[in-house]
Amino acid sequence: MSFSKRLGEREIIEIICRHLDAMPKMPIPFGDDVSAYNIGDNNLAVIKTDMLVDKTDVPPGMSLWQAARKAVVMNVSDFAAKGVKPIAILVSLGIPTKLNREDIEHIGGGLNAGAREYDAYVVGGDTNEASDLVISISLFGTAKKNALMLRSGANPGDLVAVTGFFGKTLAGLKILLDGFKAPKRIGKVLVDSVLMPNARLGEGLALSRAEAVSASIDSSDGLAWSLHEIAKMSGVGFLMNKLPIAKEAEEFARINKLDPVELTLYGGEEYELVLTTKPNLWREAEKAVEKVGGTLISIGEVTAKKQVLLEIDGKKHPVEPRGWEHLRTRVS
Amino acid sequence: MSFSKRLGEREIIEIICRHLDAMPKMPIPFGDDVSAYNIGDNNLAVIKTDMLVDKTDVPPGMSLWQAARKAVVMNVSDFAAKGVKPIAILVSLGIPTKLNREDIEHIGGGLNAGAREYDAYVVGGDTNEASDLVISISLFGTAKKNALMLRSGANPGDLVAVTGFFGKTLAGLKILLDGFKAPKRIGKVLVDSVLMPNARLGEGLALSRAEAVSASIDSSDGLAWSLHEIAKMSGVGFLMNKLPIAKEAEEFARINKLDPVELTLYGGEEYELVLTTKPNLWREAEKAVEKVGGTLISIGEVTAKKQVLLEIDGKKHPVEPRGWEHLRTRVS
Repeated sequence: MSFSKRLGEREIIEIICRHLDAMPKMPIPFGDDVSAYNIGDNNLAVIKTDMLVDKTDVPPGMSLWQAARKAVVMNVSDFAAKGVKPIAILVSLGIPTKLNREDIEHIGGGLNAGAREYDAYVVGGDTNEASDLVISISLFGTAKKNALMLRSGANPGDLVAVTGFFGKTLAGLKILLDGFKAPKRIGKVLVDSVLMPNARLGEGLALSRAEAVSASIDSSDGLAWSLHEIAKMSGVGFLMNKLPIAKEAEEFARINKLDPVELTLYGGEEYELVLTTKPNLWREAEKAVEKVGGTLISIGEVTAKKQVLLEIDGKKHPVEPRGWEHLRTRVS
Repeated sequence: MSFSKRLGEREIIEIICRHLDAMPKMPIPFGDDVSAYNIGDNNLAVIKTDMLVDKTDVPPGMSLWQAARKAVVMNVSDFAAKGVKPIAILVSLGIPTKLNREDIEHIGGGLNAGAREYDAYVVGGDTNEASDLVISISLFGTAKKNALMLRSGANPGDLVAVTGFFGKTLAGLKILLDGFKAPKRIGKVLVDSVLMPNARLGEGLALSRAEAVSASIDSSDGLAWSLHEIAKMSGVGFLMNKLPIAKEAEEFARINKLDPVELTLYGGEEYELVLTTKPNLWREAEKAVEKVGGTLISIGEVTAKKQVLLEIDGKKHPVEPRGWEHLRTRVS
């Protein structure tokens, strides 16, 4: 009891990891978006778990159906970032006694919807009584070892790109949590980005098939955090020359006198892919993404200097290694 | 809100399952101990999730280290019952803010101990803030499809057997929860059976290799419940001619004037295997288990009549389909 009781998420993970024996020849190191183990012939079983807890992950206005769907989507997003197709899903539920039959129906429906949108199936699970609603999802697939897009492959000179524009979710959360206002026209887009997130699975699978990506991560902890993670795992830095802000977020920032850079870089709960490609493979990557109906937006380049910088009007600003914090922290 | 809010675990699972699209050619049906999906060439990826929640699964006297270890062991036990070797483990944690650094160290140590005892590794995970301590474990392995020991293969005339004696955990829980007394000599054995459970992985793997088992389940919900599950999934019944009670449980029952049948049949949180074999393969099964240092105890036979009966002194008594209930239900 001599320490502060309040430990951060990353500190808890670090403490736990120090107690773990590492699997020999672990195909993916601790700290990437997914884990894996060898199943022979250069094939990997790829696995991932992520837990949704209502009090930190479910904002007011999100239904139980949407919460259950989101619990699946946030796991699929990590598979998307690695270029791995999800096949099977296990669900472990903590159910507060206050939930009734109809609530459980909505949770079941949301789980199935999230799975089927990405052509996966819920194949088993477990349920328990708990004080919070807890939806712990585990996701399973297989992949060729060399097809995986890890966080660690970025090289100086590579281009950095994203699969969509940022800022909508933080704006949407400000509407749902803090009473910010927006014209109906853009308000719905912003709020929907929070309530009905989508994983970029088509884009991730297409990029993996095109073999055009050197490093990749999903942006669930925010764009700034994602860039810092690739930087750390690849031993590189970034120079952003473009701020990929969504037009609705830009308008929201203007109306509410908010900093558009803050909205774009330091949001989270958005599920775009952040990736790097060799310059000579850029066109391949772009074509692959366009073929599945997506867009690839170049936002800058990888640098040897281990800093993450944003250049605006010829001036370079440091991008801070901070990102999404759970609702509990924000509302308390 | 027109229903009772208090839904049972099995009712919740049933509601959720009604909302799920079934995976085509699912190699193991919903409701067995594990799930699986095809990874080609008659090979399956075998997966399992089970969540430990402190308020329902951690009795007074169990340390955090023991709770974390138990969370792993209870999942390994399901793999043991199917004859599948666990390889990789994912851990999803819900951590109450009251836990301090030392608490997290104990959880990390217990997780690793549980994994390494069964030659598996924790390869990844996730942590969140939650009101309860939640330890959600997912377990992964591979198996040949025809090597799996399912709940559904028992046939009339098969022998039914268990890998150990029953009753110790319910006696131990009565000591920990309800203030029952036992002489030191047996008290430690009974309490340890609750705090330091062991999965019968060696026995399960040996039985699978011997190809001597027609149906199998672990006894985490109690012996009676396990027999009823095999009966239901195999479309058979059982006639028990022996009550496999542990000598410590028998003594505890005598001292405390408790019904030994109740202790043996209707406990739970014990991790023996309950299995059936063809009579001509009995010796094979017994040899396989003895070779890994275990014992196989015959307790009766499979019947065509779909009843589960216990014969004592020539009189047949029905075995009820009830089993382990969580601590919360017991203590409230």
